[in-house]
Amino acid sequence: MGKRRKKSTQITEDKDVRLKILYCGICHSDLHSVKNEWENSTYPILPGHEVVGVVTEVGSKVQKYKVGDRVGVGCMVGACHTCENCENNLENYCPKYILTYNSLNYDGTKTYAGYSDHMVANERYVFRIPDNLPLDAAAPLLCAGITTYSPLKYFGLDKPGMKVGVLGLGGLGHVAVKFAKAFGAIVTVISTSPHKKKEAVEQLGADSFLAAMGTLDGIIDTVSTALALVPLLSLLKSHGKIIMVGAPEKPLELPVFPLIMGRKIIAGSGIGGMKETQEMIDFAGKHNITPEIEVIPMDYVNTAMERLAKGDVKYRFVLDVGNTLKAA
Amino acid sequence: MGKRRKKSTQITEDKDVRLKILYCGICHSDLHSVKNEWENSTYPILPGHEVVGVVTEVGSKVQKYKVGDRVGVGCMVGACHTCENCENNLENYCPKYILTYNSLNYDGTKTYAGYSDHMVANERYVFRIPDNLPLDAAAPLLCAGITTYSPLKYFGLDKPGMKVGVLGLGGLGHVAVKFAKAFGAIVTVISTSPHKKKEAVEQLGADSFLAAMGTLDGIIDTVSTALALVPLLSLLKSHGKIIMVGAPEKPLELPVFPLIMGRKIIAGSGIGGMKETQEMIDFAGKHNITPEIEVIPMDYVNTAMERLAKGDVKYRFVLDVGNTLKAA
Repeated sequence: MGKRRKKSTQITEDKDVRLKILYCGICHSDLHSVKNEWENSTYPILPGHEVVGVVTEVGSKVQKYKVGDRVGVGCMVGACHTCENCENNLENYCPKYILTYNSLNYDGTKTYAGYSDHMVANERYVFRIPDNLPLDAAAPLLCAGITTYSPLKYFGLDKPGMKVGVLGLGGLGHVAVKFAKAFGAIVTVISTSPHKKKEAVEQLGADSFLAAMGTLDGIIDTVSTALALVPLLSLLKSHGKIIMVGAPEKPLELPVFPLIMGRKIIAGSGIGGMKETQEMIDFAGKHNITPEIEVIPMDYVNTAMERLAKGDVKYRFVLDVGNTLKAA
Repeated sequence: MGKRRKKSTQITEDKDVRLKILYCGICHSDLHSVKNEWENSTYPILPGHEVVGVVTEVGSKVQKYKVGDRVGVGCMVGACHTCENCENNLENYCPKYILTYNSLNYDGTKTYAGYSDHMVANERYVFRIPDNLPLDAAAPLLCAGITTYSPLKYFGLDKPGMKVGVLGLGGLGHVAVKFAKAFGAIVTVISTSPHKKKEAVEQLGADSFLAAMGTLDGIIDTVSTALALVPLLSLLKSHGKIIMVGAPEKPLELPVFPLIMGRKIIAGSGIGGMKETQEMIDFAGKHNITPEIEVIPMDYVNTAMERLAKGDVKYRFVLDVGNTLKAA
């Protein structure tokens, strides 16, 4: 604990940036971690990987930021910087990546994250928030944003006219709709909740709520429960792709014939590299894309977690850390 | 039957080519169909979709071939020619494709195939066999060849230095090894039969027989039984791909976390388009690639089927139709 305190109260590395945290989004992963649903939690946990704030101190070799800059930190705070993935700006696929919380720094200290008043991170893992984006609504871009932007780009679903399905209309799904629309795609929301049709189409700009068979170039699957793949595969055109960004705990049943008959693809994608994350934030700034949020005070966090577990949020809770976190 | 007879004894279409069949490969699909293991067989069935021979007659509008040409016919003899896939030379993914046997022509007559003395096909579905390839050994290219060549190309595994795994060393797998080597890939054979190591490395030119974790760019999975995906996924590098070309009857168990953590892909691929099939045969000609075969007389066909069911063939049976088919 001593080491951790040291890390979080002073700049210990030349390339570190300290930020005063103003807002932090609540991701479903936070809930999984708090409840140890992935069975990898090491308590105590200080969650939060959609962190935004203002720079208050910079290390001697920091080049990108100065005190007062509006910045954010996402799901990661470190990686090896020597492997092939790191060299290709894909730190998120580095086998030695360090997560923003519930992870270990290379010196063996634990990482603690955004449900807090300040944090310190290497500048490579700090992003600039464009002036036109409100800091509270920008927060969920750091996880929900990059998680959906990256696969749309990598799997070629970012071309105008592409027919893109978004499965699930929660924190991730509603941002996927906004990015896909900004890319010029024709977007269909696929959801088992018919009452979401109105908001999908009228509020988020989706083009339709039901997909016909054989019509989609790709589906971003944001649902983290084990759904049947056969009906989803049937919505794809030949050469279509399902990209899973939500991780069901149980394996799915994969039928092989439908894959072969249409040269279809099932893939996964996890957040994105640091360079691409900044690119995504800049794209959001340029197109005025922000997640839909409900801003809440710190002392509401446990209630928010309960509501999140029931899916009762449109679409992302954001903690107002700056105004409501009381000193211990 | 009258209509079929008519079809098979005279040129009925301007763009049809008649060939005298000299050799026909025995594909595992033939066995599945004869035994109705895919539950879609309509008897009588005349199997064989690795057909080679010599042109004996051409329709009035045939442009590509003349009498005497060395040609082959593969898994397909028709498609709609108007859909997006057909227009992109991907007739194999046309929803109305016509298979070489156990399928219906658009006039409602059944298709019969290569275990026979002659056949008629539209020139679009007829391929030229290069002079340097022996006709008997060229036969399996028409199915086993294109089934493995096409995914190596489409999924980008055809670049020099790519690390390619081939799962299963049978009729498909051994051709996959040869193509991947010709593309300049470093090829690892993955098999549960340790005794195949010597032949994989010494005879077929594979570079190794065991893959280390996280080392492969892609795996061509030629095995048609339901194997565990987790160990296979662990052999892939980040962004690696498993392409299934054999179709297990039962669904596989698909774990999602390993897909997400490495942005990995599981895909299917089914034969190839007609343009790509000719390209594959020409590539085989240029690089002197032919499948390893055991030539057998027609009256051995039932014994061959029994041996095939036990995996007792290296690596493909080819029927010597021209010399051993006796007139009824």
